[in-house]
Order: sequence, then C-alpha cells, then structure tokens
Amino acid sequence: MGEVQVAARGESPPEFDAEFRERLCDLLRWRRDVRRFQCKPLPEGAIERLIGLACLSPSVGLSEPWRFVIVEDDSRRAAIRACFESCNKDALEMQQPDRAALYARLKLAGLDDAPCQIAVFADRATAQGAGLGRLTMPEALDYSVAIAIHTFWLAARAEGIGVGWVSILDPSRMSAILGVPQDWVFMPSLRRLSACRRRHARARA
Amino acid sequence: MGEVQVAARGESPPEFDAEFRERLCDLLRWRRDVRRFQCKPLPEGAIERLIGLACLSPSVGLSEPWRFVIVEDDSRRAAIRACFESCNKDALEMQQPDRAALYARLKLAGLDDAPCQIAVFADRATAQGAGLGRLTMPEALDYSVAIAIHTFWLAARAEGIGVGWVSILDPSRMSAILGVPQDWVFMPSLRRLSACRRRHARARA
Repeated sequence: MGEVQVAARGESPPEFDAEFRERLCDLLRWRRDVRRFQCKPLPEGAIERLIGLACLSPSVGLSEPWRFVIVEDDSRRAAIRACFESCNKDALEMQQPDRAALYARLKLAGLDDAPCQIAVFADRATAQGAGLGRLTMPEALDYSVAIAIHTFWLAARAEGIGVGWVSILDPSRMSAILGVPQDWVFMPSLRRLSACRRRHARARA
Repeated sequence: MGEVQVAARGESPPEFDAEFRERLCDLLRWRRDVRRFQCKPLPEGAIERLIGLACLSPSVGLSEPWRFVIVEDDSRRAAIRACFESCNKDALEMQQPDRAALYARLKLAGLDDAPCQIAVFADRATAQGAGLGRLTMPEALDYSVAIAIHTFWLAARAEGIGVGWVSILDPSRMSAILGVPQDWVFMPSLRRLSACRRRHARARA
C-alpha cells in the first residue's frame, strides 16, 4: 500500500474547486452495485492501490479494523459460491418469486465472472485505537469497515472498475473457508439472520 | 434536496481522469474528524445540498434508511450536550486519564461551537427495499446509514466544511430529546455499551 500516504506534517491542506465538486457528485451518482462483470484481469496493482485508499477511511478510535482478503484460489471461490447459494435460497423466500430468481441469477453471474473477489472482515480483537472500538462499541467497529468498503467502491468507480457487494453470506462459513483468525468477523456480520428468519416465519404462520 | 438527481435514463456514464482521481485521493487523505469549529453560520442551502449527496449512498435493498435531523433548538442542543457529558464520563474510564480529559474537552468544544448539529438515525421500520433490510439484516441497514454519514463527510470536506462525528451518546436518550418515531435508531446504535462496560469491569476486578 506504499502509494497512498496520509498528509505529511507541514503539507498545506488542499482546496477543492467547483469543478471537482461537480465530478464528485457525478461519482456518487454513478456508483453502481455491479452484477455483470467482464472476465478480463484487472490492471496490475489496481486492487492494492484501491485497498490503500480504503484504508484512509475514518475508524472508531483510529482502530483501522478492516481486513481485506483477496480470494484467488479456485476451490475457495467455489466454496463461497456454494455458501451464497444456500444462504440466498433462505433469504429470498420472503421475496416475490420472479424478483428472487432474477436477483439470484445476477448475483451468481457476478460471483462467477468477477476477475477479483475480496472478502472483508472486521478485526474485533485489534489492540489499535486504545480498545475503544474493541470493548465498548463493536457496532462502531463494524461501521468503520462498512465505510472502508464504500471508500474502496468509490475509488474503484473513479478508475472505471465495477464493484458489487454481496451481503448474503454466512459469516462463520466465510471465516472457515478463508481460514482467518477467530476474531475477524465477516462483513456484513449478519448475526441475527437466522433469528429474524424464524420470527418472520412465525409472523407468516 | 432538489439539486441532486440520480443518473437519468439515456445519460452517458462519465469517465474520470487521472487528475480527478488524484484530487479524490487528496479528499480521502484530508478528511478529518473535526473538533474545533468556527461559529459562523454555514452557507445558505449547504446542509440540504450535502444531505442530498449523502442520500446517493448505497443501501441494502435500496432501503435508503437514513434519517437526518437538523438540531437547531437551543434547549435540545443543551440536552444533547448533557447526554454526551454523562455517556462520555463512563466511556472514558477505561482510557488513560490525560488522554481522556483532552478528548472530552475537544469534543465538548465541538458540540458547543459547531454552527450546525445533525442527528442521524436508521429507520428500522422502513417499508422501502422489499423488507430485505428490515427483516433479515438490521446490521446492514445500519451500515447503510454509516456509509451515508461518510458520504456527507466527504462532500462537506470538498466544500471546505468541517465535520466531526460524535459517537458516544445514548441512543434512547437521543430519540427522546429529538422526539423521533420509535423505529428510528440513533447512529451509532451502541446497543451493547452497558453490557460491554460491565464485562470490562469484571475483567479488571
């Protein structure tokens, strides 16, 4: 991540002009949750540069709890695809059938075609940030990671690289597939997915 | 929010050049969690424009669950200040005393001086987004709101407007002070603050 540095002491703060603000507005308007990808590989170094930019995001207590795992192994990609298929099946039961089928098809195509997959985790055990995030505010720690994902997304769009965020995946299965440390929680960490599903089932009964 | 529109059908997607990307990198590098504010009022319409830009953020199921409450009433500002003082006292007990005092002083000065205060909530009951966020993923709903706050923050920095995010506030007290609907949850929604504090106290005992 050597290319991005936070402002050096003594460096003058930049001013942003109306033209930049207009382009920034364009960037926000044209960020998309992409599901159709070209299979061709990304430019050399692009992912590392984008992760470096994402790491400039704000974080609670400057804990910087984001952990990016680039998934390159074919068998792991297959395991993640299977994880998505089973989780998505459950989650879509409460959608209208035609929409559900379309969503599932698009997301699966995205998982198959995207030349790069990144799994993002929140390190709940990080000692960085004086323990502020770790002990008192696990949610705020997760928010920091969500924001970093969005920063990555915007920076990628500015390079013409599409990003799609797949959120319907089982966090503990993802951790097992990727063999990450126990305290890394997959984002989004949908802890209450099954509890809510049960509640919803009761409501329909 | 009339000034910002999402891309119209038929509009060509923009391309972003190297100069824009460099300025975007500057923007990310120079975003700060501001605690020292000038008291002078903000430019007419600036807050509304920034909220409009924040509303372009991604959200789970396009639920757009963010709710921005501009706090203008003096008595409510005073109640929020008192809320911060009591929450902060608890939260800082686990910090080093010198740092704790400095942090508290800076944040209080920020709360006193900032010409505009905005409380941001997640509408957990929104019907928008096919119930995806509402039923299965309350966390993802909150992440969307955290991301919208960050978008606001970046857009403000591009206008030379400083933003500081105060996270140590009791969500239910904030809802009561501002009289918002029951399903709006203050962000960050630190539900487990007291539970974690008890656990930490035991660990030290």
